[in-house]
Amino acid sequence: MTYCVGMLLDAGLVCLSDSRTNAGVDHINTFRKMHVFEKTGERVIVLMTAGNLAITQCLVNILREALSSETGEPNLYNVSNMFEAARCVGEAVREVHKRDASALKEFSIDFSASFILGGQIRGEQPRLFSVYAAGNFIEATPDTPYFQIGESKYGKPIIDRVVHRDSTLDEAAKCALISMDSTIRSNLSVGLPLDLVCVRTDDLHVLSHESIDADNGYFRMIRSRWGESLREAFAELPDPDWLPRN
Amino acid sequence: MTYCVGMLLDAGLVCLSDSRTNAGVDHINTFRKMHVFEKTGERVIVLMTAGNLAITQCLVNILREALSSETGEPNLYNVSNMFEAARCVGEAVREVHKRDASALKEFSIDFSASFILGGQIRGEQPRLFSVYAAGNFIEATPDTPYFQIGESKYGKPIIDRVVHRDSTLDEAAKCALISMDSTIRSNLSVGLPLDLVCVRTDDLHVLSHESIDADNGYFRMIRSRWGESLREAFAELPDPDWLPRN
Repeated sequence: MTYCVGMLLDAGLVCLSDSRTNAGVDHINTFRKMHVFEKTGERVIVLMTAGNLAITQCLVNILREALSSETGEPNLYNVSNMFEAARCVGEAVREVHKRDASALKEFSIDFSASFILGGQIRGEQPRLFSVYAAGNFIEATPDTPYFQIGESKYGKPIIDRVVHRDSTLDEAAKCALISMDSTIRSNLSVGLPLDLVCVRTDDLHVLSHESIDADNGYFRMIRSRWGESLREAFAELPDPDWLPRN
Repeated sequence: MTYCVGMLLDAGLVCLSDSRTNAGVDHINTFRKMHVFEKTGERVIVLMTAGNLAITQCLVNILREALSSETGEPNLYNVSNMFEAARCVGEAVREVHKRDASALKEFSIDFSASFILGGQIRGEQPRLFSVYAAGNFIEATPDTPYFQIGESKYGKPIIDRVVHRDSTLDEAAKCALISMDSTIRSNLSVGLPLDLVCVRTDDLHVLSHESIDADNGYFRMIRSRWGESLREAFAELPDPDWLPRN
């Protein structure tokens, strides 16, 4: 499995992905799920992928190949807004589907794939999309400023509680890492290293791209102190008062 | 859906269930998923159910009818230990399967059902089991002192962090309610009222059975203060230091 989260803030975008892939429990590998398409000063686009690795790699390949195509077809370097970028991703996943889905079906393999696409193209604000296996997609709004793909449930409660459109990039990055930590602790199929990409509004390039492994001091601090903070917060809440004391 | 959690402690058992059932999103109802079988001073057995409501109601019916059977067949009132009690539940779910599974299959309905069974029968310590739709089951051990059924992921991280075999009943009940609160906040298919049953080791009767609705003062306190505590704990953690400050 996978866990990726993308957050859209007034301040910019925060994208975090893990890197574990597994087929069953005995074929575990590390593959990056974060892909950056950047033309400094003009556009910065971040794609995170979940699902069948052959499908998602094929999709990224199609998107990358299209960049150098001279047919004038839309690609992530020439589209004029993020909605069109999301359509590029949607079209690419439909192309993979056309190519592979029936062969996969013969082996009873689902065509599973999902994507988070975030970025900013000069002339508009940063935008964030969730793209489905069918190539359709939805866009984040101020009410729902984040999307998750993969093992999303463990790490959802903390995001629901602390992230808002006016959170800073620092706060959102911290929250994304806590959300990832909760997921990694409770689910074997999500693992280090992580990719954390931050994009500041109107910078039009990646502000920071951290690769976070087990030695990363900040993530180690999060891992130990967050658990401790939770236990302290837990201890401070009063016990229920209805159990007989006899 | 459903969320139920059962915790096995040295101090006893804590069982918490929600009461929401839904078929799609437009047929939402309230049905209790907590069933107590008690002979004071001799045995106390708690069953929580998740899955298809017709299946789980049928199973509970079979178990209740068996109590007054005079054939000498094993039932929850005459078995001599909790392992045999878990076998009763397993046999009952197989009986429902034999009766209904093929008819359900014709409507492409999965035979989905899962159960948590906890309790103490005089002569042994309290025990806790997780029973599957196939009628097989596993038992909690000191390493894994809890089971969840239904929408288990949202509320798992907090349990993993704070509940141990030596937690008190109060602590475990508090943690179960926080875990439920996180689940209810993030998932529409889990809802109030809740049933919380606590059993103290060697009491051989239910210590407390609370029905918790939106007016319950303690749960309201948990709901507001836990979110606040999380936000405070979050604010106290240092921000990442790698984002350029310019």
